[in-house]
Amino acid sequence: MKIGIYGYGNLGRGVELAARQNPDMEVVGVFTRRDPAGVKTLTGVPVYAAARAEDFVGEIDVMIICGGSATDLPEMTPKLARLFNVIDSFDTHARIPEHFENVDREALRTGHTALISAGWDPGLFSLARLYMNAVLPEGKDYTFWGRGVSQGHSDAIRRIPGVKDARQYTVPVREAVERVQAGENPELTTRQKHTRECFVVAEEGADRALIEKRIREMPNYFADYDTTVTFISQEELNRDHRGLPHGGKVIRCGATGGDREHAHVMELSLKLDSNPEFTASVLIACARAIGRMHVRNIFGCKTVFDIAPADLCILSGEEIRAHLL
Amino acid sequence: MKIGIYGYGNLGRGVELAARQNPDMEVVGVFTRRDPAGVKTLTGVPVYAAARAEDFVGEIDVMIICGGSATDLPEMTPKLARLFNVIDSFDTHARIPEHFENVDREALRTGHTALISAGWDPGLFSLARLYMNAVLPEGKDYTFWGRGVSQGHSDAIRRIPGVKDARQYTVPVREAVERVQAGENPELTTRQKHTRECFVVAEEGADRALIEKRIREMPNYFADYDTTVTFISQEELNRDHRGLPHGGKVIRCGATGGDREHAHVMELSLKLDSNPEFTASVLIACARAIGRMHVRNIFGCKTVFDIAPADLCILSGEEIRAHLL
Repeated sequence: MKIGIYGYGNLGRGVELAARQNPDMEVVGVFTRRDPAGVKTLTGVPVYAAARAEDFVGEIDVMIICGGSATDLPEMTPKLARLFNVIDSFDTHARIPEHFENVDREALRTGHTALISAGWDPGLFSLARLYMNAVLPEGKDYTFWGRGVSQGHSDAIRRIPGVKDARQYTVPVREAVERVQAGENPELTTRQKHTRECFVVAEEGADRALIEKRIREMPNYFADYDTTVTFISQEELNRDHRGLPHGGKVIRCGATGGDREHAHVMELSLKLDSNPEFTASVLIACARAIGRMHVRNIFGCKTVFDIAPADLCILSGEEIRAHLL
Repeated sequence: MKIGIYGYGNLGRGVELAARQNPDMEVVGVFTRRDPAGVKTLTGVPVYAAARAEDFVGEIDVMIICGGSATDLPEMTPKLARLFNVIDSFDTHARIPEHFENVDREALRTGHTALISAGWDPGLFSLARLYMNAVLPEGKDYTFWGRGVSQGHSDAIRRIPGVKDARQYTVPVREAVERVQAGENPELTTRQKHTRECFVVAEEGADRALIEKRIREMPNYFADYDTTVTFISQEELNRDHRGLPHGGKVIRCGATGGDREHAHVMELSLKLDSNPEFTASVLIACARAIGRMHVRNIFGCKTVFDIAPADLCILSGEEIRAHLL
């Protein structure tokens, strides 16, 4: 299967590496809005200007779009769905229905197959929520994120005047997780579920007390959380906070029986050393499925909910029945 | 959707109760090989002789077959697949390919849709293994069962002369689970993964030392495990070991990166108060999917790997995209 990578940041590099772990995948090219001459890929994949993508129609089975959800993907994915089968990792939950409609329209009109919002959340966590809700209709589910780096929150801190660099960790509250795992079905506020740990490099002479206050009081991002702010040097940040680990848990507690007397707890847990590389690994598996669905003349926009699991897997039906069932 | 229940033991009763939690489901009848006059259902569903099932062709969308894997299902499922769309929970892993062929042949010949080996293992655990393998092709996965009652092992103990009743718990070894969760990818023997706890009611005057020896040395069932045997009274067994709890974990550790430098741990964990009621809840969700696939003229034998997750869920595509993605 021939893959294109559109956008070459952390996620695009992850896709390039993940493709190497899948013998049925070949990366045809990386497409970038930067000057291609200045971009060197990790594994020697050729680099082209984004504007040249349409020259590759017929040579790419699935284009994996590695842009940001805020401004890139709402524009890129519908546009590229006119030329290619496409996949993105659009993660602005509130705007998913709108994005779906835009991509679906273009893909249907041109006979392409598209998948939006693939990755782990949305993605594998969404699948867990669906399977759990289908199996235990009477219950309640919880999603915890972390401990892991939130790039959105790190960026928000970096925009504060006087901040040179920052790394923000989202941390699930252990006690809350344990109550959910015990099947207590607790009502939990935002503050009771997660805390936020900020490591901040201040510019020389900056007012640290003011920076801390601004972080703690930032609406949506920090105001509803117990937030700790630790000032460190750039060297410490580079040394101790270079990675992009993440993870989390989806837990559903439900009841069955004549009188709901039997409790059941289902939990999916992820512990990831590299958020972008893991997300990229999900995208590659999804690319396989989208390529196969396209060959079967299944067109339009899909989500992970529409993919028969067998289509994600390199093995044949006989092999998965014999070895994985 | 109209459901039939073929076989009315613990699993059949679980299906009857699970259907009540799903407003789109209606149980038309229970079919039993016992005298229907002597069977009373939990929710007032009518009971018919198994031999009368074919009178209900056209009135049942999906027949859920609740028989045993050893002798019932290999015969029942292919036979009933000639008359109905069918689902079973066939769990003899080694014989799945053969069972699949037999059911597929009959279902294809008569234009029915069948699903074998649904439940949690095989079933949800199989799905977890497939998703995890697809996403992390370079890695290793582990399945731990328990702490929970193994009915097969309890039955094996009850067949020993001098044993009046018994309950066997399969228990995962905590240290092994923790090493796997830590991403160590250990090599583990059968003995290192699980222990077996047996609670035995001996007949009066029976040779307890001999019973214990026979349990511990029983090949396949106990010889490869650290096994503890505790003799208790029938009253204690009835009081403390009446339930059928179970559960377990599927864990996969894999690596990504230019030099496999990033480790990832994925884990699905189930903690179930009632094994048969939870299994039944999975079967009901699968019945929904099989009914929908049949309407789309998708015939033959399927497994959970072939079911698009959206088909398991009572909600519409718009609803699941808006609320679960």
